Amino acid sequence: MTQGNTLDNIRIVLVNTSHPGNIGAVARAMKNMCLSQLYLVAPRKFPHDEATWRAASAGDILDNAVVCETLDEAIADCQLVVGTSARERTVPWPLLDPRHCMQEAYKESVGGHRVALMFGREDRGLTNEELQRCNLHVHIPANPEYSSLNIAMAVQVMAYELRMLQVSGDLDANAMAEWDQPVADAEALERYLVHLEETLYDINFLRPEAPKKLMLRLRRLYQRTRLDEMEVNILRGILTSTQSWVRKVRESESGGGDEGR
Amino acid sequence: MTQGNTLDNIRIVLVNTSHPGNIGAVARAMKNMCLSQLYLVAPRKFPHDEATWRAASAGDILDNAVVCETLDEAIADCQLVVGTSARERTVPWPLLDPRHCMQEAYKESVGGHRVALMFGREDRGLTNEELQRCNLHVHIPANPEYSSLNIAMAVQVMAYELRMLQVSGDLDANAMAEWDQPVADAEALERYLVHLEETLYDINFLRPEAPKKLMLRLRRLYQRTRLDEMEVNILRGILTSTQSWVRKVRESESGGGDEGR
Repeated sequence: MTQGNTLDNIRIVLVNTSHPGNIGAVARAMKNMCLSQLYLVAPRKFPHDEATWRAASAGDILDNAVVCETLDEAIADCQLVVGTSARERTVPWPLLDPRHCMQEAYKESVGGHRVALMFGREDRGLTNEELQRCNLHVHIPANPEYSSLNIAMAVQVMAYELRMLQVSGDLDANAMAEWDQPVADAEALERYLVHLEETLYDINFLRPEAPKKLMLRLRRLYQRTRLDEMEVNILRGILTSTQSWVRKVRESESGGGDEGR
Repeated sequence: MTQGNTLDNIRIVLVNTSHPGNIGAVARAMKNMCLSQLYLVAPRKFPHDEATWRAASAGDILDNAVVCETLDEAIADCQLVVGTSARERTVPWPLLDPRHCMQEAYKESVGGHRVALMFGREDRGLTNEELQRCNLHVHIPANPEYSSLNIAMAVQVMAYELRMLQVSGDLDANAMAEWDQPVADAEALERYLVHLEETLYDINFLRPEAPKKLMLRLRRLYQRTRLDEMEVNILRGILTSTQSWVRKVRESESGGGDEGR
């Protein structure tokens, strides 16, 4: 199964792009995120060395790009058309943030619809007329004091949201889920903590008159860490080594007849 | 109220960046997403016209960038250090996707912690040693057939996730954000790990011929635990006590003239 197949119905449409470097950067971002369909509406310079260089290992996306003269050609067969938009518009349109908008786009593409995501010119985005060709508008909630993202960055954000939806089936929020060692069970942890307390008494770090909270703090530390079995073995090995040094001192003291200590 | 204030505790740390254009693109992505703190560790070319050009209207981010010679300088005062990572590593570390990882980072920064997000070299990312300085690793779930994102794109993805959290305002409680003790910073943790290694040599638990991975496993354990300052003090107190026993043995041996040992 191809990794990108659930995204194959989604195309990126770049309208009147000025800088070929941006086209290359878009291609790379697309391939990184498993998108493959690139449509270029009247690009100023394409093909171009700068595009090829910035695409890095995504040259195949550029090679397969569909170059159109008009926006109509690029979106004609699409069932869902989404345009990127600044927030201020004269005519309000259904406007979503990238997360919710890409959820819509992903659902439709999985259902077999062809989806176009349109990105406008570097300097002034999409015209009102172009925006009115869209079913939905999407807005990246950028800094109001500097809201103009580079076009390839905007594509990266949308493509990332789509990729997250594609992989969400096998994503696990639990950082310990794929650990290389079995997680220690409660009994092993408890034996370690008993061994730790015993050793701390041996080295006179814990004393009957010391604050009761010390051992509690160490317990909290190791409980929250979710020790694995090998870590418990290492930590207990350290305790055993430490105890052997205490024993040497005791033996040399008793061997020397120094009972007073 | 400044829009960017809840993100002011989060710094982007670029390690050994080769291309100044990438530094500029990172600055723009940061300002677009309301991030402001840029740290550059030994950049190859900076300042540079190409950086200024790609930064567009984010020149202030470049002007205020902190240039450091070593990674230590860039992260010393941070309570949470996150590194970007490819999935394949010899020793697994707690690994999150950008969404969950930035939730952690955002919660901690709102709680007053300083957070570093580290990005590596264009050609080979962060070294294992650098990755081992991190509390968490974050991985963008890219196309397995072409997983190498441009560094500015990777910053854009993380910054976008942070900005989405900032504008959504939804925060649930974080275990470490409301801790009863200040979380130890990277420098304090590093001093503890040096002290631990020294002590393990003292007690002959670590030897030159022992497996190299032992210390790495202990480092991983304490890095992921997010030690607080009191815990570091307790753990170092235990090490100091242990060393005093070793010293007693050495002194009694040398005092008894028993060099043969």
